Amino acid sequence: MPNHHLHELFVDELRDILGAEKQLLKGLKKMEDKAENANLKDAFKQHHDETQEQIERLKQAFDSLGIRARAKKCKAMEGLLNEADEIMDEFEGDPAMDAALIAAAQKVEHYEIASYGCLVTYATLMAHDEAKELLETTLKQEKATDSKLTEIAMSEANVMA
Amino acid sequence: MPNHHLHELFVDELRDILGAEKQLLKGLKKMEDKAENANLKDAFKQHHDETQEQIERLKQAFDSLGIRARAKKCKAMEGLLNEADEIMDEFEGDPAMDAALIAAAQKVEHYEIASYGCLVTYATLMAHDEAKELLETTLKQEKATDSKLTEIAMSEANVMA
Repeated sequence: MPNHHLHELFVDELRDILGAEKQLLKGLKKMEDKAENANLKDAFKQHHDETQEQIERLKQAFDSLGIRARAKKCKAMEGLLNEADEIMDEFEGDPAMDAALIAAAQKVEHYEIASYGCLVTYATLMAHDEAKELLETTLKQEKATDSKLTEIAMSEANVMA
Repeated sequence: MPNHHLHELFVDELRDILGAEKQLLKGLKKMEDKAENANLKDAFKQHHDETQEQIERLKQAFDSLGIRARAKKCKAMEGLLNEADEIMDEFEGDPAMDAALIAAAQKVEHYEIASYGCLVTYATLMAHDEAKELLETTLKQEKATDSKLTEIAMSEANVMA
């Protein structure tokens, strides 16, 4: 049975994550600029491109619900990016900068994993199949990015300086 | 080989998560108050108690390194809790309040999972065995809390209203 009580929460969370993804684009550019390790730089560049795809996918999800795609300022992403800025300033020129960037980025990825995880649950409960598929695709990408960052941290001796 | 370049980042992240845990105590009280479902209320109460244990464990980790336990204001947790406040206001009296609380709490848990995950990695790389064990214990608790929240969301018909 479709569950309509969740509708307002679903739309609210969609607007929140659309805002979050848009806010993140700038953050990823900065992280790419600051990264020393080539694989890490590439990972940030690739995730910047994926974030643009994810924004498009969110717009498609709104479309599938017949709702205008409107972003909401995401206060949590704002806090996460403020913290990332703080750590980038603090570790400027430090051999631990890449490790610091990985930590900041994994915190962002985990925010998105929690958010898309909830969205997939709501879409499932309300039988919004098209939106569910779109959101699941992005959830998988976010998890893959998190794993890739762990892999870079572990495999590249120079990332962990 | 112990890796000393990471030391400053390790201490910085320890201070950040100590601040985050302290900031979270109030947030969990509010979530407990707002929750309607009895199992969800209990889960917030239990996690409030665990958060106090986790703060003690962080102090022990600082001790094991011979460093004074000093907290730093965690800007990311501030953002996450601002967002939680916003959603609690928005869904006041709404049947989707419990679902909204679960989403907010899972975002917080994921922040902590990312943070303790990085801390365990640093402790491992710098061979801080005692700190590593303490941080791993907390990491497991955070993951268990996240799973429990998913379980409540899925199993309690009235949580998803």
